Amino acid sequence: MGALEPFDHGITAPQGFRASGVHCGIKRARKDLALLYTPHLASAAAVFTSNAVKAAPILLAQQRLQDGVLKGVVINSGNANALTGPRGLLDAELMASRAARTLGEHPATFIPASTGVIGRPLPMRNLIFGISVAAAKLAQTREAATHAARAILTTDTVPKEVAGRVKLRDGTTVTFGGMAKGSGMIAPQLRGLHATTLGFVTTDAAVPRETLQAMLERAADATFNMVSVDGDQSTNDLVVVLANGQAGNAPEAADGRFEAALTEALAVLARKIAQDGEGATKLLEVEVQGAEDLDQARRAARAVVSSNLVKAALFGRDPNFGRIAAALGYSGCRLAPDRITLRLVASGGSVLLVRHGEPRAYSGTAAYRRAHELLRAKEIRIVADLGVGASSATAWGCDLSYEYVRINAEYTT
Amino acid sequence: MGALEPFDHGITAPQGFRASGVHCGIKRARKDLALLYTPHLASAAAVFTSNAVKAAPILLAQQRLQDGVLKGVVINSGNANALTGPRGLLDAELMASRAARTLGEHPATFIPASTGVIGRPLPMRNLIFGISVAAAKLAQTREAATHAARAILTTDTVPKEVAGRVKLRDGTTVTFGGMAKGSGMIAPQLRGLHATTLGFVTTDAAVPRETLQAMLERAADATFNMVSVDGDQSTNDLVVVLANGQAGNAPEAADGRFEAALTEALAVLARKIAQDGEGATKLLEVEVQGAEDLDQARRAARAVVSSNLVKAALFGRDPNFGRIAAALGYSGCRLAPDRITLRLVASGGSVLLVRHGEPRAYSGTAAYRRAHELLRAKEIRIVADLGVGASSATAWGCDLSYEYVRINAEYTT
Repeated sequence: MGALEPFDHGITAPQGFRASGVHCGIKRARKDLALLYTPHLASAAAVFTSNAVKAAPILLAQQRLQDGVLKGVVINSGNANALTGPRGLLDAELMASRAARTLGEHPATFIPASTGVIGRPLPMRNLIFGISVAAAKLAQTREAATHAARAILTTDTVPKEVAGRVKLRDGTTVTFGGMAKGSGMIAPQLRGLHATTLGFVTTDAAVPRETLQAMLERAADATFNMVSVDGDQSTNDLVVVLANGQAGNAPEAADGRFEAALTEALAVLARKIAQDGEGATKLLEVEVQGAEDLDQARRAARAVVSSNLVKAALFGRDPNFGRIAAALGYSGCRLAPDRITLRLVASGGSVLLVRHGEPRAYSGTAAYRRAHELLRAKEIRIVADLGVGASSATAWGCDLSYEYVRINAEYTT
Repeated sequence: MGALEPFDHGITAPQGFRASGVHCGIKRARKDLALLYTPHLASAAAVFTSNAVKAAPILLAQQRLQDGVLKGVVINSGNANALTGPRGLLDAELMASRAARTLGEHPATFIPASTGVIGRPLPMRNLIFGISVAAAKLAQTREAATHAARAILTTDTVPKEVAGRVKLRDGTTVTFGGMAKGSGMIAPQLRGLHATTLGFVTTDAAVPRETLQAMLERAADATFNMVSVDGDQSTNDLVVVLANGQAGNAPEAADGRFEAALTEALAVLARKIAQDGEGATKLLEVEVQGAEDLDQARRAARAVVSSNLVKAALFGRDPNFGRIAAALGYSGCRLAPDRITLRLVASGGSVLLVRHGEPRAYSGTAAYRRAHELLRAKEIRIVADLGVGASSATAWGCDLSYEYVRINAEYTT
């Protein structure tokens, strides 16, 4: 961390990006349609769900992004337009082309994105009406960014935004903006192109398309693909980055420092998604150190944040090192039980749970009571040192609460 | 199904097997120590957890089973003897040798098995005292079988037993008995030797050791490895089969019919484990048909029973075909969304949820209301036809309830 200089703003922070968010009647009362637009043709990079059941907007976006340039995205919540057959594809196409045409742009310069219930046709009348309203409300203001960020939410409880600046090698300062949604049906899935939720990042930097795509893939692997709320991978996941070049930097100056800032922007959004996981009362951050290689470190960290037993223990404020060790054990990463060291960090304090395979904090011990106290915090960090190598990785998740069950037992098809 | 002729009995049903179950003080009040013994040296086959963090009794059993013969197993619940270092190994060895010596047998003819909390040393005084009591109570009665089946439970609510007969090719009738435990920390993990809970099967058939091992591995893949309660794989999983030869069959007569009966016995136990999953209110059986090959059929079936979202929907009686389709989609098996057909079967009735990719039962439809009604049943079957091949597989799981969260938030290290 440190490349991105953050400030309070959202998706419209960079020059030349406008957004809006409105209610068009897909949901009962809350905003359900967002528009994102730049009049300057932007380099576009994207990663998609690797689920074999892909929603119609994903299929269309994959096709349109082959050109690597876009002017906008139209996003609805409340209906995923998934498992909707040929009609779903036509609807996705109409949704994007209507947004483009309303703004006087070529249909191929817009992509659609959808999130919500699966298996129901999009209510196209509402959408078409909504698009005209959203187009009329497009603005570059701070408020417009939040309206858009709110309009893409489903079971999320708070909008998720990010903004920051970074100075490039050629002296140009470029700006990032972003918004994301994701609360349930969230799990990392590392196969080819992939993503785990909806994420949108804008920047006024000039970046060649191929460079941007490569950077996004690496950044998504380290951020969005390290988030797990429930282990379920969606049919609609999508992360898109638009770079419209308005900052006027030399394209070759968008190098390592730019990538670091992009990764930070995505990390901020990823962390916010984990924190707002369905029913979550706590954010869980797991850092695995001392793994044999990066892939193994990531596997191990993801296994711990994805474990239902670890998540339920966290909800119950139980520093259950046995479940953490078991999750590391089945993650598929190489380890030696007698080298594992586990530390719990929260609220500025820390407790050693296991040292070189030897439990320190079983119930009845002072360490257990101290850990139980630390677990009152809203942000919990577990540091797992495997002691077999030099690679590390961080994953984000949340606890498993009664509320998660309630939300998902009541949410209907 | 059909090879095994079932009858009401347990682990002591076959000739020459004795068992007992006692309370020795590892748990506060309930039985916590079981002994299983045959005075006739038995062919022994076993599959073990593939978790890299293996409990001490697993490490010892793996070593002892290289010979392929055993006379008994000593099993404690309440303490897993996992993450207990060199002391844990010595304790596991002492536990097994004490059981063997008490019965006048060679120490190498017994293996230990443990289940319970991780990271605490076994209370050896209680265990040693308990073993002498358990040895004195060994019996071949129906009651003794249930005492043993009760003594191996942790958060399970009911003992899990099976018994049945099968007539072999040479005219001999051989008998099977079995018991299992498993409620939480249950997930299939298909890598080399593996298992997903504690399972013990006895038979008075004569079976060559290598044949028995090969049969057990195939049977476990089709049964215990198709059960998921929470996706967490334990450090202590073990399934053992003992064949003491007392039925007097020709060893070569223990062929396909014998294997079918063994598989059925394990399937009965596997189903009981899923049904008694932590907090479960419903059994979920998922049959995938029309997959490209057996491995893909199994992956797909396991993905559906393991999905938190599907499990929570089941708890809420929501026939959420979208979540089922999404789980099939991320299972890694080949499929075409427009070929998927999903049917819900319960209480003798059935509803088509999706036909060739087209949803039939979204909310508001008569099909939805009918499915919602059928979901009152305690045993729910989902039949998913992928329509891309001819392979099928069945997996077992349960719903995700408030009670699962309560149990695992309160259960302590």
